[in-house]
Amino acid sequence: MKAYAMTRIGHTGWVDKPRPTCGPLDAICRPIALAPCTSDVHTVWSGSIGERFDLVLGHEAVGEVVEVGALVRDFKPGDRVLVPAVTPDWSSREAQAGFAMHSGGLLGGWKFSNSKDGVFAELFHVNDADGNLALLPAGMDLAAACMLSDMVSTGLYGVELAGVEFGDTVAVVGIGPVGLMSVAGAAIHGASEIYAVGSRPNCVALAREYGATQIIDYHVGDIADQILALSGGVDRVIVAGGDAKTFVQAVQMVKRLF
Amino acid sequence: MKAYAMTRIGHTGWVDKPRPTCGPLDAICRPIALAPCTSDVHTVWSGSIGERFDLVLGHEAVGEVVEVGALVRDFKPGDRVLVPAVTPDWSSREAQAGFAMHSGGLLGGWKFSNSKDGVFAELFHVNDADGNLALLPAGMDLAAACMLSDMVSTGLYGVELAGVEFGDTVAVVGIGPVGLMSVAGAAIHGASEIYAVGSRPNCVALAREYGATQIIDYHVGDIADQILALSGGVDRVIVAGGDAKTFVQAVQMVKRLF
Amino acid sequence: MKAYAMTRIGHTGWVDKPRPTCGPLDAICRPIALAPCTSDVHTVWSGSIGERFDLVLGHEAVGEVVEVGALVRDFKPGDRVLVPAVTPDWSSREAQAGFAMHSGGLLGGWKFSNSKDGVFAELFHVNDADGNLALLPAGMDLAAACMLSDMVSTGLYGVELAGVEFGDTVAVVGIGPVGLMSVAGAAIHGASEIYAVGSRPNCVALAREYGATQIIDYHVGDIADQILALSGGVDRVIVAGGDAKTFVQAVQMVKRLF
Amino acid sequence: MKAYAMTRIGHTGWVDKPRPTCGPLDAICRPIALAPCTSDVHTVWSGSIGERFDLVLGHEAVGEVVEVGALVRDFKPGDRVLVPAVTPDWSSREAQAGFAMHSGGLLGGWKFSNSKDGVFAELFHVNDADGNLALLPAGMDLAAACMLSDMVSTGLYGVELAGVEFGDTVAVVGIGPVGLMSVAGAAIHGASEIYAVGSRPNCVALAREYGATQIIDYHVGDIADQILALSGGVDRVIVAGGDAKTFVQAVQMVKRLF
Repeated sequence: MKAYAMTRIGHTGWVDKPRPTCGPLDAICRPIALAPCTSDVHTVWSGSIGERFDLVLGHEAVGEVVEVGALVRDFKPGDRVLVPAVTPDWSSREAQAGFAMHSGGLLGGWKFSNSKDGVFAELFHVNDADGNLALLPAGMDLAAACMLSDMVSTGLYGVELAGVEFGDTVAVVGIGPVGLMSVAGAAIHGASEIYAVGSRPNCVALAREYGATQIIDYHVGDIADQILALSGGVDRVIVAGGDAKTFVQAVQMVKRLF
Repeated sequence: MKAYAMTRIGHTGWVDKPRPTCGPLDAICRPIALAPCTSDVHTVWSGSIGERFDLVLGHEAVGEVVEVGALVRDFKPGDRVLVPAVTPDWSSREAQAGFAMHSGGLLGGWKFSNSKDGVFAELFHVNDADGNLALLPAGMDLAAACMLSDMVSTGLYGVELAGVEFGDTVAVVGIGPVGLMSVAGAAIHGASEIYAVGSRPNCVALAREYGATQIIDYHVGDIADQILALSGGVDRVIVAGGDAKTFVQAVQMVKRLF
Repeated sequence: MKAYAMTRIGHTGWVDKPRPTCGPLDAICRPIALAPCTSDVHTVWSGSIGERFDLVLGHEAVGEVVEVGALVRDFKPGDRVLVPAVTPDWSSREAQAGFAMHSGGLLGGWKFSNSKDGVFAELFHVNDADGNLALLPAGMDLAAACMLSDMVSTGLYGVELAGVEFGDTVAVVGIGPVGLMSVAGAAIHGASEIYAVGSRPNCVALAREYGATQIIDYHVGDIADQILALSGGVDRVIVAGGDAKTFVQAVQMVKRLF
Repeated sequence: MKAYAMTRIGHTGWVDKPRPTCGPLDAICRPIALAPCTSDVHTVWSGSIGERFDLVLGHEAVGEVVEVGALVRDFKPGDRVLVPAVTPDWSSREAQAGFAMHSGGLLGGWKFSNSKDGVFAELFHVNDADGNLALLPAGMDLAAACMLSDMVSTGLYGVELAGVEFGDTVAVVGIGPVGLMSVAGAAIHGASEIYAVGSRPNCVALAREYGATQIIDYHVGDIADQILALSGGVDRVIVAGGDAKTFVQAVQMVKRLF
């Protein structure tokens, strides 16, 4: 079958791959809607996960089930499903301890386009179908649903890790798709003020639409200084972009005085 | 000075009271906006807190500061303030342990119209002004602010005790003012479905306005049965009305199966 | 093969059963150390889980692995393993939500001697071997290890549910094996006082050995009254025995005043 | 009265000070047992809190109450009391939010030998006596009790902040008095392994006595490397000494793989 792959660091192309095999717990799916992720770009161009040869890219998909293993109970061929970017091993010690994304080791739950072929292929393999797939409600927009595989869930997970509570003031650093979903997530958790750090006009417009009350442009000056000046410090910070320095700024912009 | 009091269980009337004295941490206020509470009714007519003679009623007030003690730092005569129904002793062991409302004993933080005269008087006394008063922002509607003294804070505290999180299904039993504020609070904490139990038409209309997605009428049948039939069980229940049996129903309507 | 079973409510006996079949994730074990549980008694004599015919009893075992399925990675024939009483389906929604013991429905993780044959047999079947078995360290006492399958873990889980913290005063109602492990668990969580409710001399002696600072005998009077008189109320209560009335007493013996 | 003070950065000496005045909530005490703290050394020799002139040193004391204010209810002259190093304003917004040590601003609850005169004087002043003093049980060793004012409480607070739970592996960096109390605290919270970083023989001996299972000597090599080599990474780290680099090492020594 045909697949779109990282042939080696810095190179991509169409490759031929054998049809994936379906184990007793697995599903084989064909893609309906796919989305690229900045992580695909990092994987290919920065070699962020190390060298890979002919690794199929992609980990954001809505698909149709084509085949299921003998022990799969909740899915059957023809089902339209959301395929999450992270597909943990739920029996692992890490998952049992509450860290499913790290099943089998640090970020070990992230398998597509990392430790196995991704979803940019005529067919792709899903481990533990019952544990990892979600049936799409009839009538759901399939392109919109595809955003649930990574952008929405990652952005909202940041809001949960930050412990955003009703009335909190929140800074979201970075308003790419994940950061925008953190803005939206902070709003639905009841944030009273949301400082969104970014500058691209289309992202700024979406941030405002999703609930940002202030836009902080890092071209204007240090983002921690700007947020401290406006807010006196915020209750929660969500880092959805930046570099190592961003973590220092994140600490600096937290409220110190009441 | 004149005050409106419970003269004894089952009787109310206007009484004459001496002007309250201001200790070093205290404030004396005159009322601007007052509201009665169902608790005032229970106090007088059911004797719910025991016999009291010439106890001034009322614990919901917006007031103007008339006098402050020598150690008060944050308030001065003329300030317009929210006076909370519960005015704890913040140095008590209970408050230090996180249970300010029980400072000095069970519900000991509730002083107005309980262990001391309430706010339905020409002047009333506030203990620990710095710890217990809140300055009203200029331009705030004073009658609306008065609802913050008990109805809003009690209703939202129920939501916090219930641990309502984004996506939860919630039942609110009782849609008097406190229950309505629990409905509103559940909505701003991100509840996905809110089952509001009540039947008075004006309360039902407000519950819908504040975010209730289903109205459950207890005249129609057992409320737990109705909520189980509609939802298969909810994630959280907030009891804002009813009697001892309501607690049993509250347990029954919680989700048992996923 | 031979097995010891509940033939129907109120009756037990040896029965003949076919050798269990090993699925791809499963293990077949032979027992090394077994223990009966009060639940076995309730199952047979009270019919507490309903009628069952020729259901093999027993859910506390240390065993030796005899066979493993093709997908099992962590175990091989000859391994000596602890077999827990509760063997959840870790991919279920309930387990993913943190309630593994309720995988597939209320108490659905409890399979042995409930929804499938138990461990009192020449061979028994373990679902999801990687997720549910634990390798025993060399040299561990096998009879002692058998207590980890239910008594120790259930008793300590009670301590965790009660949220026992350093310095807390704790009441443990019931000092059968589970209650005794709750006493021990409260002690290793730093409880300052442990009130153990029971009267059998051997259990009382063990409770003292495990850390009980006071023994409360229910023959002497109401246990809540006794604990309130001694302690003024405790911080935490663990119910490890009793009947419906015990829950009311548990609430009554909690500290109300500081 | 006589007092021992920091006369300016780098200088100490005996000074004459007026007797402190007792406000309505306050107590005046005379010292019975006093202890110096490394913070006193930092205050004088490193100027860690900025310049101070004739500031009385000391914040660890057991004392006898000499005078109390008119509103003090729980103490009277002659009482023997523990005087904590941190004496918050319990009505402040910070204390109400659960951060009593920061009442009135960052570390604002630390008043002795910081924002007001300390306890190394013939008499010293305690703000909010009811909120801040603790009556010593009869027969308690007064020198031992003095350690509760800072060393024990600070060390155990580190254990609480680290969230040490039964079975956790814990690293304690620094085994001065505070670190030693963190070792003891980790032990009574049920830590299974305690890696104590230090080298002074007397501290090492005490660390072992209080529950350390391994001693890590930073003269031998990088402490994170040593702890990772021994443990594969720990569940919790408590920093009770070191410098800015220690925080990086603290992160490095945390368990990454299960």
